[in-house]
Amino acid sequence: MKQKEVFLGVDPGFYVTGYAIIKQEERRIFLNECNYLKMNPKDHLSKRVGIFYKLFEDKVKKHNVTNIVLETSFLGKNAQTFLKLGYLRGIIYLLASQHNLKISEFAPREIKKAITGFGGASKDQIAIAIKTMFPMLDKVLKAARNDVSDALAITLCGIWQQASVR
Amino acid sequence: MKQKEVFLGVDPGFYVTGYAIIKQEERRIFLNECNYLKMNPKDHLSKRVGIFYKLFEDKVKKHNVTNIVLETSFLGKNAQTFLKLGYLRGIIYLLASQHNLKISEFAPREIKKAITGFGGASKDQIAIAIKTMFPMLDKVLKAARNDVSDALAITLCGIWQQASVR
Repeated sequence: MKQKEVFLGVDPGFYVTGYAIIKQEERRIFLNECNYLKMNPKDHLSKRVGIFYKLFEDKVKKHNVTNIVLETSFLGKNAQTFLKLGYLRGIIYLLASQHNLKISEFAPREIKKAITGFGGASKDQIAIAIKTMFPMLDKVLKAARNDVSDALAITLCGIWQQASVR
Repeated sequence: MKQKEVFLGVDPGFYVTGYAIIKQEERRIFLNECNYLKMNPKDHLSKRVGIFYKLFEDKVKKHNVTNIVLETSFLGKNAQTFLKLGYLRGIIYLLASQHNLKISEFAPREIKKAITGFGGASKDQIAIAIKTMFPMLDKVLKAARNDVSDALAITLCGIWQQASVR
């Protein structure tokens, strides 16, 4: 009997991190949680890294997460921001190692294509597709701008890609 | 009475990480340990991040580390390598948070200047200066190429800069 799997998708950022936790049993999926973490830019970097670790360590334990999904990052305008994004990604990789989780990454185009059918979709198009799939999330999606819908898109992409591999 | 402080300097890398642990009491310093960690590039990234965390968590506990020193990183030729360097730096920041350690960063020029008096010194010049200061380290310095001498330079820079702040 195939055990259930629990996917945690994270869209990390030092200002706002979106995340979603979706449980998959057979062909059905259940949304356990989706939300965002906002950190105070005035806090020391090490404090924020610690808060980030603690939150996701708690989520991994609470939901018995089995798989982590990330979006592959590409260098933007600011190299130091890009490096610091690596700090948070490193924490996610550490959690994968400590809790023996599968971890997978998808390029932004793959995620957009999985959700909207179009690899060049905008963030708003992603948000509309996610809202259609999860109409009850209207409130949290609005509060978090696109961070939570991006995290849901990343998580769903991880689940669907994995399903298609089997 | 001023308590003793213990500085851990790290020069992180996914292939070789150099590190040094130096204890400072009053105006005297004692080299507790210096060495390097070599990781297998064939291991999964999350496994290597886990090994890196475990090693430095052990060192922090064993030596009662109070301060961490890093060299500021700048974007090189490969953006993805730079991002992954961020993973390891994130682990160091996490340890600083978890063990309540002071963490400081210095630019390569500051470190070179502190050790050799010249901000444009080469890695070999750093190694020669370090060898002069720690002649008993000849063997480990040779085995690790410049990774350990760089880590010693980073650690010493952290100690001296801190001393000059007081």
